[in-house]
Amino acid sequence: MPLGERGGWERSESRYCGVETDFSDDVPSLLSFHISTGGFDYVLAPLMNPSYRPSLVEGNGSDTQVLPVSGSDLVLAPSQWSSHVVGKISSWIDLDSEDEVLRKDSETTLKQEISWATHLSLQACLLPTPKGTSCANYARCVNQILQGLTSLQLWLRVPLVKSDGGSADATSEGQNDSWELWNSFRLLCEHDSKLSVALDVMSTLPSEASLGRWMGESVRAAIISTDSFLTNARGYPCLSKRHQKLVAGFFDHAAQVVVSGNPVHNLPKASNSNTEGTQRHPLRSYLDYVAYLFQKMESLPEQERIELGYRDFLQAPLQPLMDNLEAQTYETFERDSVKYIQYQRAVAKALVDRVPDEKASEITTVLMVVGAGRGPLVRASLQAAEETDRKLKVYAVEKNPNAVVTLHNLVKLEGWEGIVTIISCDMRFWTAPEQADILVSELLGSFGDNELSPECLDGAQRFLKPDGISIPSSYTSFIQPVTAVKLYNDVKAHKDLAHFETAYVVKLHSVAKLAPSQSVFTFTHPNFSTKANNQRYKKLRFNLPSDAGSALVHGFAGYFDSVLYKDVHLGIEPTTATPNMFSWFPIFFPLRKPVEVHPDSPLEVHFWRCCGSSKVWYEWAVSSPTPSPIHNTNGRSYWVGL
Amino acid sequence: MPLGERGGWERSESRYCGVETDFSDDVPSLLSFHISTGGFDYVLAPLMNPSYRPSLVEGNGSDTQVLPVSGSDLVLAPSQWSSHVVGKISSWIDLDSEDEVLRKDSETTLKQEISWATHLSLQACLLPTPKGTSCANYARCVNQILQGLTSLQLWLRVPLVKSDGGSADATSEGQNDSWELWNSFRLLCEHDSKLSVALDVMSTLPSEASLGRWMGESVRAAIISTDSFLTNARGYPCLSKRHQKLVAGFFDHAAQVVVSGNPVHNLPKASNSNTEGTQRHPLRSYLDYVAYLFQKMESLPEQERIELGYRDFLQAPLQPLMDNLEAQTYETFERDSVKYIQYQRAVAKALVDRVPDEKASEITTVLMVVGAGRGPLVRASLQAAEETDRKLKVYAVEKNPNAVVTLHNLVKLEGWEGIVTIISCDMRFWTAPEQADILVSELLGSFGDNELSPECLDGAQRFLKPDGISIPSSYTSFIQPVTAVKLYNDVKAHKDLAHFETAYVVKLHSVAKLAPSQSVFTFTHPNFSTKANNQRYKKLRFNLPSDAGSALVHGFAGYFDSVLYKDVHLGIEPTTATPNMFSWFPIFFPLRKPVEVHPDSPLEVHFWRCCGSSKVWYEWAVSSPTPSPIHNTNGRSYWVGL
Repeated sequence: MPLGERGGWERSESRYCGVETDFSDDVPSLLSFHISTGGFDYVLAPLMNPSYRPSLVEGNGSDTQVLPVSGSDLVLAPSQWSSHVVGKISSWIDLDSEDEVLRKDSETTLKQEISWATHLSLQACLLPTPKGTSCANYARCVNQILQGLTSLQLWLRVPLVKSDGGSADATSEGQNDSWELWNSFRLLCEHDSKLSVALDVMSTLPSEASLGRWMGESVRAAIISTDSFLTNARGYPCLSKRHQKLVAGFFDHAAQVVVSGNPVHNLPKASNSNTEGTQRHPLRSYLDYVAYLFQKMESLPEQERIELGYRDFLQAPLQPLMDNLEAQTYETFERDSVKYIQYQRAVAKALVDRVPDEKASEITTVLMVVGAGRGPLVRASLQAAEETDRKLKVYAVEKNPNAVVTLHNLVKLEGWEGIVTIISCDMRFWTAPEQADILVSELLGSFGDNELSPECLDGAQRFLKPDGISIPSSYTSFIQPVTAVKLYNDVKAHKDLAHFETAYVVKLHSVAKLAPSQSVFTFTHPNFSTKANNQRYKKLRFNLPSDAGSALVHGFAGYFDSVLYKDVHLGIEPTTATPNMFSWFPIFFPLRKPVEVHPDSPLEVHFWRCCGSSKVWYEWAVSSPTPSPIHNTNGRSYWVGL
Repeated sequence: MPLGERGGWERSESRYCGVETDFSDDVPSLLSFHISTGGFDYVLAPLMNPSYRPSLVEGNGSDTQVLPVSGSDLVLAPSQWSSHVVGKISSWIDLDSEDEVLRKDSETTLKQEISWATHLSLQACLLPTPKGTSCANYARCVNQILQGLTSLQLWLRVPLVKSDGGSADATSEGQNDSWELWNSFRLLCEHDSKLSVALDVMSTLPSEASLGRWMGESVRAAIISTDSFLTNARGYPCLSKRHQKLVAGFFDHAAQVVVSGNPVHNLPKASNSNTEGTQRHPLRSYLDYVAYLFQKMESLPEQERIELGYRDFLQAPLQPLMDNLEAQTYETFERDSVKYIQYQRAVAKALVDRVPDEKASEITTVLMVVGAGRGPLVRASLQAAEETDRKLKVYAVEKNPNAVVTLHNLVKLEGWEGIVTIISCDMRFWTAPEQADILVSELLGSFGDNELSPECLDGAQRFLKPDGISIPSSYTSFIQPVTAVKLYNDVKAHKDLAHFETAYVVKLHSVAKLAPSQSVFTFTHPNFSTKANNQRYKKLRFNLPSDAGSALVHGFAGYFDSVLYKDVHLGIEPTTATPNMFSWFPIFFPLRKPVEVHPDSPLEVHFWRCCGSSKVWYEWAVSSPTPSPIHNTNGRSYWVGL
């Protein structure tokens, strides 16, 4: 019975809760007890008798032997196996043992069990934690298996531990950070998307920074031992605040909770047999607490629910200069009222600065909206004039002939004929009849300049008065390194270089932000300097928090912040983002090969903005701790057309 | 005038010697002086006036300005430019300067000069040494340029320095190792094959181990300053023993010497103007010394000359079980007399052990040659019998019906009809009429078991007596990590995964061996154990010498050693290789992404030999310092058919 059904969480995988069980050769009873009686959604159960060892089977192999499995496909329908059982691979296996017989028994058993799980149509199997610090042979065998799987997922069980050794003690620390084990294993398996991780949550949790890393990894399950629960005043199990926060994070990232272990809380007698002697499931109170935590999750805001389908979904950035937007796209962006309120505030402040109150009735300010689209900035500007009681003459310049049609209708509908002149022209080539006091534009992309606002405004500032105002007056891009397994695998799935050298617009969700963002490129308008150009180069250095442990960087999340006018800004950089604005998702610059970083070795990154005669593009590279190739040389994979 | 013309060196690029010059706008005179008078083969000369700065040119750019080049394509024919001039890019450029004007001037000039060099059809340009520790913007610009080049080569000038800091002082040491600079630059440029290195040889040389690394890199030139020469008893320039050894290494690896700087040796007057007042070139005595070193190089042995064309040339390994060898291949291998002498010695010892002298005339030893080919092992066995005066009965088993034809002719020709029985059959499926005392085979590949000798001999040992002897009685494979830029680039040129997951037979030459080889898999014959199988797993750990500095591992060189019988061995492992045997080149296992290793962090490597029902394959991976993906999973790219 799922943990909850409301608040936008009803589609999340995290609403299912499992229970870890011992081996049983009576699977129907096992399910009946844990699911029907206990209320769990599925069992995490061994598939094979734990005493089985292939080398001990007589008759030289398993030719005549029936495998000692927990139950066949006749005792339970495939659909029941599939929805109610996650297979637990024998925990005695040790493929990196020094003992060759154990190693070979382990490999044989692992392959037999996975084959059996596939036969049963299971959705997932749990692989036991690697026994030592080395896991290469285990990874080799799993990697061989992964090549043959189609729908079965493998969850590698890893304890959630990391010693608190200071960064000076880096070497020994690394060995006590279970993330390192996971990282080695999945790198050896080449980031196979069918391999994920199941974390054993212990009573003691490592540092916040080190926990944060896991939110960018593919964590499918959090296995919480009954030992990790505290006892509340009424004798019931509960979790520490830090555990609660962690579990909320897992819920938010589609990871399921599995309760494991024996009950260690002695509940008041009454609740153990509440309905006439019917035995209550011994772990029921743990499940109830997990359900309570799930139901306590805040409902998702309306906009967040709308955007659920966009989470971690890679989109190619717009090419607004080369392509014309469609009506649907205009409509979506125009609904972002917060954005236009900010523009209105900026225009109002500029009008007041430009025309003193005493001259408000004499002076008509010439305002040009360049890239007027279907008119939202024209409306915001006129509202600013009304609000400040200034006289305004507006030119609405728009290159998309389809949007111009809408503009003409709007002007008629609103009765703006005397105030607004519509110009159907690319702003870079328009010969203006007069000069403007204020130039208003909204040409920004998720990374600020990536939709060529600088080039467009350079072209438009010809018809701005020398002391005129550009709104926005400046904008700056930002990046930060992220762990983002999901995005990396989606890029990799294309199996070509070009997709690794492309930036994507994406609503980041299953992403771990490894260091605060830093500014990259800034553009200021107007800029009448003859030496000005729009090429840029920035070298950045990111340091991981000293208690974070190592992490894998799959690429960079990018944002922008823009100063519209004076103190009126607009942006999506997380720490300063304009609230409730939804026009821009972040941008994501992938790395062809993920780079492992440590708190002791800063990540040095280079970004270039390059300009050619017909296109603008970015190149990027990591130079430290290990140099990457330079990405997107000469804009060979990704560029924006002029 | 090339340095020499003999001993197998007449085709080496290293026979040309250059001289570094200052800027001159009279290139014909420059060439006349240095080449005709001086005897050098080419000049390394600036292409542009060193005082030129694009930002100082009036008229806002170079639109109306003629570039201040050293000479146009009219003063010298393209063929002369091409064969006598290596362009020296302005040494003032600094693309990673904090000064943005200097940075942009540097980029403009660099692109102009390369464009000009391309116009002149130069073969190569020398890029100045990066100024600071950072070189990312320089590398970005060079990388952009490299994409457009077809024949022009770029040589990055790098001083040959590495501080001797102990390995404890790893961080500061790294910064003083110029290899690190080169490595960063070329990784950023993604190992472009048109980018190589020119080393400035100083008077002080770093450790031997650190010099060794360069032999696997693409070093095109060694620029030796006159300061680095010593003075011999007669007042002439000479080089230290260590310098001589280094230069010999460069000659052997096709790197050219360039003499640089002002003369610092005051020669006896007479030799300065030896022919009636004609001024001798001031650097002539340095050139003469370089020529002396070149001519002192030992002539290449005959076999080495034959194999010159195979140096660093990747070949797919044979598939001797699936394919039949051609007559030409048999002939080549049969010429390797050393190999058959070893077999004869082994058979002789086995015969003597098996049949005491007093029974020599009674007992007939049954010897089976499995994989008899065209008969060389039959001949060696018969000679061993003659030599030891033992009676022999030989079965020659061969699966290739074409070779069987030759065998029949050989037996007739030699009159062996009474002794040798020819069996046209695959040894794995032959039903032998009697059991053998001695099983002789030569089924070894460069990596020992890689041509499936274990599987063949497992099949053949059915007809070996329980106390019978297999020759070879065992064999072991070996690997060692190598820097091998040339091989890596040749693999990369295929632009697919499969070639990075294939092992190649290759005569290794431009390869730096980074650590002593270690044993991998051993097979012993006969092996009647029922538990025996031919799957293998080996974990290896390699340490670089502590004074080597960091190095890039492109893959692993592989070898074998085989015990034929008792103390008679045969092999190609470098430290124990059988002299003058040429049947096997080493094997090379590439890495998909080269791994940087340091003396402080051992390289941990895993090799697997996997067996399926129809094929045998290897998988391999690096687990430390950074895990690689597992190569060739399930033999998807490279396998040997059963």
